[in-house]
Amino acid sequence: MRTKVAIIGAGPAGLLLGQLLHSYGIDNFILERQTPDYVLGRIRAGLLEEGTVALLDEVGAGVRAHREGLVHDGIELAFGGSRHRIDMKAATGKTVMIYGQTEVTLDLMNARKAAGLTTVYQAADVKPHDFDTDHPRVTYVKDSITYELDCDFIAGCDGFHGVSRASVKPSAIETFERVYPFGWLGILSETPPVSHELIYSNHARGFALCTMRSMHRSRYYVQCPLDDHIDQWPDDRFWDELKRRLDQKAVDSLVTGPSIEKSIAPLRSFVAEPMRFGRMFLAGDAAHIVPPTGAKGLNLAASDVHYLSSALREYYDEKSSAGIDGYSARALARVWKAVRFSWWMTSMLHRFPDTEGFGAKIQLAELNYLVGSKAATASLSENYVGLPY
Amino acid sequence: MRTKVAIIGAGPAGLLLGQLLHSYGIDNFILERQTPDYVLGRIRAGLLEEGTVALLDEVGAGVRAHREGLVHDGIELAFGGSRHRIDMKAATGKTVMIYGQTEVTLDLMNARKAAGLTTVYQAADVKPHDFDTDHPRVTYVKDSITYELDCDFIAGCDGFHGVSRASVKPSAIETFERVYPFGWLGILSETPPVSHELIYSNHARGFALCTMRSMHRSRYYVQCPLDDHIDQWPDDRFWDELKRRLDQKAVDSLVTGPSIEKSIAPLRSFVAEPMRFGRMFLAGDAAHIVPPTGAKGLNLAASDVHYLSSALREYYDEKSSAGIDGYSARALARVWKAVRFSWWMTSMLHRFPDTEGFGAKIQLAELNYLVGSKAATASLSENYVGLPY
Repeated sequence: MRTKVAIIGAGPAGLLLGQLLHSYGIDNFILERQTPDYVLGRIRAGLLEEGTVALLDEVGAGVRAHREGLVHDGIELAFGGSRHRIDMKAATGKTVMIYGQTEVTLDLMNARKAAGLTTVYQAADVKPHDFDTDHPRVTYVKDSITYELDCDFIAGCDGFHGVSRASVKPSAIETFERVYPFGWLGILSETPPVSHELIYSNHARGFALCTMRSMHRSRYYVQCPLDDHIDQWPDDRFWDELKRRLDQKAVDSLVTGPSIEKSIAPLRSFVAEPMRFGRMFLAGDAAHIVPPTGAKGLNLAASDVHYLSSALREYYDEKSSAGIDGYSARALARVWKAVRFSWWMTSMLHRFPDTEGFGAKIQLAELNYLVGSKAATASLSENYVGLPY
Repeated sequence: MRTKVAIIGAGPAGLLLGQLLHSYGIDNFILERQTPDYVLGRIRAGLLEEGTVALLDEVGAGVRAHREGLVHDGIELAFGGSRHRIDMKAATGKTVMIYGQTEVTLDLMNARKAAGLTTVYQAADVKPHDFDTDHPRVTYVKDSITYELDCDFIAGCDGFHGVSRASVKPSAIETFERVYPFGWLGILSETPPVSHELIYSNHARGFALCTMRSMHRSRYYVQCPLDDHIDQWPDDRFWDELKRRLDQKAVDSLVTGPSIEKSIAPLRSFVAEPMRFGRMFLAGDAAHIVPPTGAKGLNLAASDVHYLSSALREYYDEKSSAGIDGYSARALARVWKAVRFSWWMTSMLHRFPDTEGFGAKIQLAELNYLVGSKAATASLSENYVGLPY
């Protein structure tokens, strides 16, 4: 078998890359270890930058997002007992869209299906080979048969734990990491959201976030110890803890209900450099992880894919390798800005072991400054809505 | 003896307060433990916000500053081998002035002398008493005689190690502190500055700062271990280390020469709350310390004194205690913003024990973002030139 670009991973990064390449006439093939249902079952991010939505539109997969997505002009920061709105649209002219990653994945899957393109699900033992030569290939096992896929390039869109980055020899890769000393306990419930915009709360008991998937489905998080188990968090305890971290007005309008999903996730910042190894490229979580505080994970995957698809188009259309040669540096420049923003939002909003006394006062000073300064509000906003590609 | 306001400390805070009160017709008396020469011999900050200069002008002590001070429209940030200018005037319409704290003190001393106001130097055993009553007083010893000064109010302008804050019972005061794990080794030399503006350098070997007192007198700093001693730093070693932390263009234009002062200073953030205890007020370093990275120490003392003098004027002129009742909260709101800014500048520019790997990349991401974003440049600038009173 042969294709131009072998894409490992059928999450939103791999699927978006596949559709963009297809729209540029570049043949591609996607291999995914899991089933479609498994991929769709993963609860992930739910906030899209305008640039991400534009990429969905570019491949014709944005119709439902525009119909069902909720456009938000701002967010609220809660601290010191009151809430302060950040009007991001006023500051930047841009908005963000609430639309679940699961929905993005489904729309891209359907687009791929409609275009008649190949995705092999439940591909076992996927392995990239010879990407440091001009003849890379990917092997995998499907229904006990081993296949070999020859290609021009391999795109590793297989997430943090994927095989692509793991196939690079350690001396060729440099990694940067910060593990945060807490987790996010999150629940999904079939209740109307407490507010029509997101509320990020800095509270002495720990961070809380009120977000949503739709006007009928809420998503709430509270910061919790990393070693907590969800069994320790029956719904009642969760709602009580959430209420303690919100202002009275929010508490009064909060509608509680049974959780339909509950999980504890660790928070991590991680970047691998470079993002290109010969004829293999990494994109999205395969190369970098951000804590969810800045809502950047899915959006960074989209910007990586934008850079990578443009680079490959340049390679095939203009016979120039300038784009692929510049991919890693170009993607990483934007990645690091989003990694910084996510780290900063996380640092400002959570309790840390050393956020007693001076640290907590610095957080409040920063929040007070932020909501009172036009320049600082604009800086937060331009990062939140997404820095330009 | 009796006065309306007994001021403890004849540094710039105490002297400026004395002159402002005098201009409002409020009788005051300054007590200083040291000699005038000792006070003038302390090498301190050298950068004035426009608000600070305006206060000097208000008491007629700004003439020489306007004649000899150097007005700067921007600063330079050096990192990754190149320099990037922050045009603060373009971002804020404001400038800063290079004019040594020693000169400010001298100008205020001369203004006080010209006005015929009392300053008792070499006052030993200065002690504030009964400030939780309506009859506060200050005792001190001069030439072996003990004096008692009755007053309406006491102003503690006697610095971090002064007796004023130390006289408050510990349960009445809350303190917040961060001690940084490095020092600044600074030298003063009779050489022209390497650049006409300040250069703040983030370097793998540690922070460096190129500043000046005049066009003939340079002030340079390098970050150093806290337990280093100046004997380990002969001039040649200092200049060599400074050069290693600057870009080639700066190295080429650096004029070296013998140091005329050399010292190692620790860096600390410290805030005591509240800033009022009955009829005693704290102002300046007596209440808070900032690391010198943001050049905020002297300027915060000036804004405290502005708030305090306005409050006392209101008390005497309008028979209203609203001003003095609000002094602490009003001063602290601005103090914490400057404490945050100084902490942030320090965090972004220095090597910390954990600034390897991820931390160093975050610093560079932040600096890259800063110099490329209009909003972030404006945010840095508005803090650097001084937030409004």
